Amino acid sequence: MKCRKCGQGAVLELRRHNAAFCAPDFLEFFRNQVREAIRRHRMFTRDEPVLVAVSGGKDSLALWDVLIDDGYRTTGLYLDLGIFEYSQESKAKCEAFAAHRGVPLVVSTVAEEVGAPVPVIKDVTRRPPCSGCGLSKRYLMNRAALDRAMPVVATGHNLDDEAATLFGSVMHWQTDALSRQSPALPSSHPRLVRRVKPLYRLSERETAAYAFLRRIDYIVEECPFAKGATSIAHKEILNRMEDASPGAKHNFLFGFLDKARVAFERTESVALNECARCGQVTTGTVCAFCKLSDQVKRAVR
Amino acid sequence: MKCRKCGQGAVLELRRHNAAFCAPDFLEFFRNQVREAIRRHRMFTRDEPVLVAVSGGKDSLALWDVLIDDGYRTTGLYLDLGIFEYSQESKAKCEAFAAHRGVPLVVSTVAEEVGAPVPVIKDVTRRPPCSGCGLSKRYLMNRAALDRAMPVVATGHNLDDEAATLFGSVMHWQTDALSRQSPALPSSHPRLVRRVKPLYRLSERETAAYAFLRRIDYIVEECPFAKGATSIAHKEILNRMEDASPGAKHNFLFGFLDKARVAFERTESVALNECARCGQVTTGTVCAFCKLSDQVKRAVR
Repeated sequence: MKCRKCGQGAVLELRRHNAAFCAPDFLEFFRNQVREAIRRHRMFTRDEPVLVAVSGGKDSLALWDVLIDDGYRTTGLYLDLGIFEYSQESKAKCEAFAAHRGVPLVVSTVAEEVGAPVPVIKDVTRRPPCSGCGLSKRYLMNRAALDRAMPVVATGHNLDDEAATLFGSVMHWQTDALSRQSPALPSSHPRLVRRVKPLYRLSERETAAYAFLRRIDYIVEECPFAKGATSIAHKEILNRMEDASPGAKHNFLFGFLDKARVAFERTESVALNECARCGQVTTGTVCAFCKLSDQVKRAVR
Repeated sequence: MKCRKCGQGAVLELRRHNAAFCAPDFLEFFRNQVREAIRRHRMFTRDEPVLVAVSGGKDSLALWDVLIDDGYRTTGLYLDLGIFEYSQESKAKCEAFAAHRGVPLVVSTVAEEVGAPVPVIKDVTRRPPCSGCGLSKRYLMNRAALDRAMPVVATGHNLDDEAATLFGSVMHWQTDALSRQSPALPSSHPRLVRRVKPLYRLSERETAAYAFLRRIDYIVEECPFAKGATSIAHKEILNRMEDASPGAKHNFLFGFLDKARVAFERTESVALNECARCGQVTTGTVCAFCKLSDQVKRAVR
């Protein structure tokens, strides 16, 4: 197996690209895919400060690593979910990475912001664990960026994540979710920052290889509450289809973005208000985060 | 397990409907689903002659059985694909059913119409086996109806078939196929008859139960060329999802029909011409069937 670029021995085969790469050329391929994502979707410029949401996992740290090396003005944001050792370890990985690379890291703690950590939120609400956690994360990411006058949050969602989300939305034909599925969500309100996913062109296997080759120390464990999540079942289905037909995942996601997404774009825009309590954006009067936070605070009082 | 209708012992549980039925009430449930399909999509009236495409399998014979009992003016159409014993047996099942019920059956033979049976077509063309066969079937069904001045062809496609087709179209975002995925395709040209699928609300398991309870003698074997077809792989994926979450298949298909199909409806209509050779409809000058037939005749000469 030889590197497609230089002809030397390859360390990684990418069947869906019908290519193999040596370590340096794979790293360059990886960075070029990130650059292409940023360019194609005009995610951010070198003049804009970028808040990079990091979990301590391979994807978000790989993303941060590429952006730092490419000279972007980044700040890391770690959201401490308070999920026992999992959160302690993942926080330590983010802090060590930031210190090693000499870049700023902001830590926001869900227990302080919502009134209790994710394991308690999970028990208090009747939502599935990922639901209250996701809601809190999206809210806190946006607020952290607004507080620092940063126009954009970048997350480490990769091709597998995006394909699995799309698969779930399609199986239920959630047209709202389909209209929002995009590598770059523009700001639709002054109090809503841009959200971008510069790794959407790269698979989970590729981000793992990048992190390994770059010697990034990341947390390997998955969130303990993710067990049994439908997103994992959907990833397994897509992985089996990928094994049978390399490129299946890529074609599914990119086919949607290229050919079908436009069909779901909203014809009427939704009216956005500012939450009467916190001032962040909501379609109602009080936003879902404030309601969640009230519910949690009542329960743990 | 008790029948939802009468409270007697049930013979069949339908998890996605959260219901169980005794034999007579299941048969009535089944017929009502067919009636609902016909009514909702205005498939045909009792005054219109209906050509029912029968393969000798459980689905198409179950469909024909229901339509006969409900007093529709039906004629069966059996397309002899010339696939060895499989075709001989399935033809015999159709002939026996028609004789038993005293209804007319038309037989059309692919070898005569195309110039060679499906196993030869498969070898002559470079298409996958199901491709040339499907093309021939759609063409011959339409012509058989036109020749008899029948305005509509009904096929035995069930919920599982339709969900698997949709799944395949979605995985590749074939927007043309998505725009045509419907329980009822209206005639868009005088030489194109209506195509309807009155079993689209009923699962494969339900048509098998209906055929069993009605003592319909059908061919159990699948087409020998279907082995390895992606539609079978897609059915397996959907079956696993259905096991994990009853109703998944139904929600996938019906969610599409109710919420998403409209997004793929063609804005511009395609120009349809009459084939210079046979007069049937084509988007080009000579239709795909005539081209296939030429290719086959040249090869077997």
